[in-house]
Amino acid sequence: MKFNKYYLFCYLFCLPFWVMAEDGSELWLRYEKLPENVASNYQNQIETLAILGQSQTLNIASDELQQAFLGLTGCSLKTDSKFGERSIILSLASNKSVSQFFTKDELRSVGDEGYLLRTIPVGKGSAILIAANTDAGILYGTFELIRLLQTGQPVYALEKIESPKYDLRLLNHWDNLDGTVERGYAGHSIWWNYPKNDEVVLQRYVDYARANASVGINGTVLNNVNASPQVLTDEYIRKFAKVADVLRPYHLKVYMSVNFSSPVVLDGLATADPLNEEVIKWWKQKADDIYGLIPDFGGFLVKANSEGQPGPQDFGRTHADGANMLAAALKPHGGVVMWRAFVYSPSDTDRAKQAYNEFMPFDGQFADNVIIQVKNGPVDFQPREPFSPLFGAMQQTPAMIEFQLTQEYLGFSNHLAYLAPMQKECFESDTWGKGKESTVAKTTDGSLFASEKSAIAAVANIGRDTNWCGHQFAQANWYAYGRLAWNHELALDELAREWVRMTFTLKPEFEQSVVDIMMRSREAVVNYMTPLGLHHLMGWSHHHGPEPWCEVPGAREDWLPSYFHKASEDGIGFDRSETGSKATEQYFSPLKELYNNKQTCPDELLLWFHHLPWDYRMKSGKTLWEELCYHYYAGVEETRLFQQKWDALDGIIDTERFAHVQQKLKIQTTEAIWWRDACLLYFQTFSKMPIPLELERPIHDLDELKKIKFDMTHHN
Amino acid sequence: MKFNKYYLFCYLFCLPFWVMAEDGSELWLRYEKLPENVASNYQNQIETLAILGQSQTLNIASDELQQAFLGLTGCSLKTDSKFGERSIILSLASNKSVSQFFTKDELRSVGDEGYLLRTIPVGKGSAILIAANTDAGILYGTFELIRLLQTGQPVYALEKIESPKYDLRLLNHWDNLDGTVERGYAGHSIWWNYPKNDEVVLQRYVDYARANASVGINGTVLNNVNASPQVLTDEYIRKFAKVADVLRPYHLKVYMSVNFSSPVVLDGLATADPLNEEVIKWWKQKADDIYGLIPDFGGFLVKANSEGQPGPQDFGRTHADGANMLAAALKPHGGVVMWRAFVYSPSDTDRAKQAYNEFMPFDGQFADNVIIQVKNGPVDFQPREPFSPLFGAMQQTPAMIEFQLTQEYLGFSNHLAYLAPMQKECFESDTWGKGKESTVAKTTDGSLFASEKSAIAAVANIGRDTNWCGHQFAQANWYAYGRLAWNHELALDELAREWVRMTFTLKPEFEQSVVDIMMRSREAVVNYMTPLGLHHLMGWSHHHGPEPWCEVPGAREDWLPSYFHKASEDGIGFDRSETGSKATEQYFSPLKELYNNKQTCPDELLLWFHHLPWDYRMKSGKTLWEELCYHYYAGVEETRLFQQKWDALDGIIDTERFAHVQQKLKIQTTEAIWWRDACLLYFQTFSKMPIPLELERPIHDLDELKKIKFDMTHHN
Repeated sequence: MKFNKYYLFCYLFCLPFWVMAEDGSELWLRYEKLPENVASNYQNQIETLAILGQSQTLNIASDELQQAFLGLTGCSLKTDSKFGERSIILSLASNKSVSQFFTKDELRSVGDEGYLLRTIPVGKGSAILIAANTDAGILYGTFELIRLLQTGQPVYALEKIESPKYDLRLLNHWDNLDGTVERGYAGHSIWWNYPKNDEVVLQRYVDYARANASVGINGTVLNNVNASPQVLTDEYIRKFAKVADVLRPYHLKVYMSVNFSSPVVLDGLATADPLNEEVIKWWKQKADDIYGLIPDFGGFLVKANSEGQPGPQDFGRTHADGANMLAAALKPHGGVVMWRAFVYSPSDTDRAKQAYNEFMPFDGQFADNVIIQVKNGPVDFQPREPFSPLFGAMQQTPAMIEFQLTQEYLGFSNHLAYLAPMQKECFESDTWGKGKESTVAKTTDGSLFASEKSAIAAVANIGRDTNWCGHQFAQANWYAYGRLAWNHELALDELAREWVRMTFTLKPEFEQSVVDIMMRSREAVVNYMTPLGLHHLMGWSHHHGPEPWCEVPGAREDWLPSYFHKASEDGIGFDRSETGSKATEQYFSPLKELYNNKQTCPDELLLWFHHLPWDYRMKSGKTLWEELCYHYYAGVEETRLFQQKWDALDGIIDTERFAHVQQKLKIQTTEAIWWRDACLLYFQTFSKMPIPLELERPIHDLDELKKIKFDMTHHN
Repeated sequence: MKFNKYYLFCYLFCLPFWVMAEDGSELWLRYEKLPENVASNYQNQIETLAILGQSQTLNIASDELQQAFLGLTGCSLKTDSKFGERSIILSLASNKSVSQFFTKDELRSVGDEGYLLRTIPVGKGSAILIAANTDAGILYGTFELIRLLQTGQPVYALEKIESPKYDLRLLNHWDNLDGTVERGYAGHSIWWNYPKNDEVVLQRYVDYARANASVGINGTVLNNVNASPQVLTDEYIRKFAKVADVLRPYHLKVYMSVNFSSPVVLDGLATADPLNEEVIKWWKQKADDIYGLIPDFGGFLVKANSEGQPGPQDFGRTHADGANMLAAALKPHGGVVMWRAFVYSPSDTDRAKQAYNEFMPFDGQFADNVIIQVKNGPVDFQPREPFSPLFGAMQQTPAMIEFQLTQEYLGFSNHLAYLAPMQKECFESDTWGKGKESTVAKTTDGSLFASEKSAIAAVANIGRDTNWCGHQFAQANWYAYGRLAWNHELALDELAREWVRMTFTLKPEFEQSVVDIMMRSREAVVNYMTPLGLHHLMGWSHHHGPEPWCEVPGAREDWLPSYFHKASEDGIGFDRSETGSKATEQYFSPLKELYNNKQTCPDELLLWFHHLPWDYRMKSGKTLWEELCYHYYAGVEETRLFQQKWDALDGIIDTERFAHVQQKLKIQTTEAIWWRDACLLYFQTFSKMPIPLELERPIHDLDELKKIKFDMTHHN
């Protein structure tokens, strides 16, 4: 490495970073100095940045890459309008000076958002080319290169041809216009009712956009699915437009959740009936208004006739009537309607069956710019559920998966739970909708059932907290979701490894332990909360902590844990087999039969599909009661192990984030024990069986646990 | 076994026992039906009870034996005034009809309280003879036979010649006249301010006397050593006399704690100076008054010039002056003075040294009916202390050990702690006072230093609770103390085994587990409270729970934990070696040198005698900090194990006592974790070292623990 004039500058520039508190605000885009051997290696291979073209997005890519290179290597990249040896080249594929480096087929294959990232021969040496059909592709390719540099990967022989699996890769913010966030555990909304400080807010939005672009997320719904009609007033449309202007150069579109009764509430229309001419006109006008200010507006997300939200059924119309009317208003502008299938009503029908029952009759009746947004499981974002039977079954209408990143049912922002394994489990579940290998991923990404646009969404875990997500490790869920939305075939441990390197350090002993913790974390939560297919044992309404005993006079039965666990002296579990609710019938053969038979039903879903006696003999040879005990205890042991593993890393990373995670892990263990004791002591009142003697005794009393009243104010 | 007319009676008589709740009120005198094979074996060998003589005590022995035999075998003993084959014979040795069965030497050897228990040939068969020089000896022999029957021992070839090691075997009740009990955790006093129900109270006193007689305790101090002068009013002397009348037939003498300033307070004397003639006369008159009503009154227990109590030093006199004056008043009646050596004052002198410093100068100056009562350790009834250096050193004055059964520093009545191992540790400690084998036992039981009367005392753990001691297992401490006072050479596990069989069941699987728990229990407490020689880390004044950080403005320094642990960044422990307080000098060689040298000082007393740096390398190879961590954690693991072992016994004994102990063990584990976390997190603020990574993480926060305020009302 040669000495050059940039050195002094680098040094001065970097100083402020070194003294800055490590508060997690930089997410995985930290660009901390790499180990000297890695940094100097990059400096030897890369010297200049050639930008062939001119656009705001290209500028962003160029700036990000320069900032990253400076931070990582301690040395600036010289920019140039021509490339040579040791250049990084950012170029539209249409630029003739690079066209020799790829084929037309390759170009076609990367599509509108993909890129080529390739080492090309230049002079006697080589250069790195990032080429794409669009600025967006170049931006994504640039972030991929940055990731390679951040994670210390070799860059001398690059050869990547990438394009996303899903067309629309969204975050859903459940943010209310008053600034609160439904199920938000990282502070108030970054979008609404933000105290005025335009510069700070703007920087926050830029950083948000950078983070999303870096993982490939290309759309965001700025308001809660339980939508206020106000969002469609001129005032709010203008606010959406302002955010859209900031996010646009990062290839991030804004979407809006809309309330189906908006025409009535906002403009006094007599009805919101989707077949009413006035209503149709009203929505068309609104769409026009929006596109007038936001030409690339993404579309509407709609929660209709669900948990008290208005919808077409209020007027004797169907989901298809409602969705198609909105779709028609958006269609001329290229917008989509994401219509949620999360519907259930107080009835004798098993709640897990209702979405399927309500939507399947309309399969094929939806407009081509309607996508049905289906939660990954048939109930509600539990630590573990089987996949929703709508996947694979809806073959004439595009279905999109909705995941939840905010940990409504997984310990809020206090529990370390790497959710990518849960998502992967869903992606890889074989629906058998079109025979073997009809995975949920294939039924939704367009590869099995053709659709105009394939899509995926996740409920964001983002708020005003300095570290964005409340828990340092919750950032990994934002990160990994984006990466999986881009390519659901990526390996989970690889994703974890990338994130750990980018977020913390390249030191292998740290990476090994922390990746191990992450990979085990979701199963730990399942074990200490809801093992063996149990679900929804959480406290009523707030969903924090265990309340399997919960009784709320007047509450909907299907919001109470006893509806789901059905524990009695006879046994435990929800019989959804052919002797019970017959929910198994919503699955294709041979899954249907597999789930239906308690002998073949996988242990991890056993009590989801079956009600079994406490002394039921499990495959392990243990009784059901014993197996339940062992799972709950194993969950706690895992959290203790996480603490030990983390503590062993003291001194490797900054003290601020180390202490933050340490404190969170302590809470997690405490709450895991709370879960274990609460569930086992409560179920024991029915099983009348002892906790196996090899196991530590519960430390709580059931009566004492029942008295705990959760105060939401502690968590928002 | 032949059918006889007693059967129906037995059956009817036993019924009420069967339906009675097992509340622990019967202590170890339960006389539950033995297994059929054991019972019938006894019935084959024993048929009649022959009582040769007539006295209240003999009647008691006879009644107890009949009740026991009926309960244990389901069949009554016929009584007779003559003996034959299959008789049990209770007889004074002076009765000519039994004199052929022993030698004069044997008779001499059993003394005033001992007995012969012997199978003798009668006709073509045999009988069981209990013979003694006194009624008391017969009573003790009878209880020994009952114990053999209760524990299922063979009785066909008995040969026991027994006499007690100590002459005076006392309980000290720290009971105040208002009915409260200082350091009492089993309800209010059974002696004072008892709500009137003479019959119930009388039965309680009878049961108390039976229990004591059954283990050989022959004296009891009915009031607190922090004595009210009121106890010497006529009213209270009469009350003492009434109790004495009940206890007398059980060979149980009453004693009284007296307040040294009584003459001033009660009768307005100008002084309580022990050399003042009026004072001397006053005490002599009091002694005469007492003996007028209680001819076998035992004597006075005195806490003088200690923790604010008045004493001879208030008048410029010495402990010897004070004790001898009282001794002179009692001497004509055969009474003794037990003068406590538990003295220390706010000074620069190590509190552990003060009793020795204050008493050694007077060795040999005390009257021959004065006994110096010395707590087993030099500080104050800690989970572990070295023995008091007064043992072995006071060679001209009898010293008696004072143990504490009430668990002031060992978890109150919530922790299972079998204290016999602590007592044994003290008994067997070699003082080297007269060379090797000068154990504390030998220096106090009269075998090494001649004394008119040898004595031993223990602070009682008895109150009005139905189960007497608060914790079912605390009864074992009453039991084992009495047995060890009789014979300090008895094996601890044997004692535990006896007690378990008598109190619970003969089932071997129960006995094995429970004896194991008991034998490990005291060391567990040491580990989770004060391992490695630490001491007095308990909360100020109440002594409940850990407060190593405790600071009380204006409190005596030597009542605060920091006085004892002396933790700082330099290290931890009280340097009592020659570089520190030189307390080691109060011990004889080679103990002095052994304790003085940190290399030879036993680990379990290391921080009692040494202040060592946190990274001090222990014999184990671990640092001091690590070793401390491992000990605290081991203590918690033991309590968890106790829970598991106990739970494994579900169904073997009655549900009432099973549940009682189960609940107590749960509290114990919870509090053990509290102790572990509090001490380690606090000490960690000095050590700055991590808790070893193999260990579970603390579940508490130091700040949260510091906020716990103990409310005594929960525990009395």
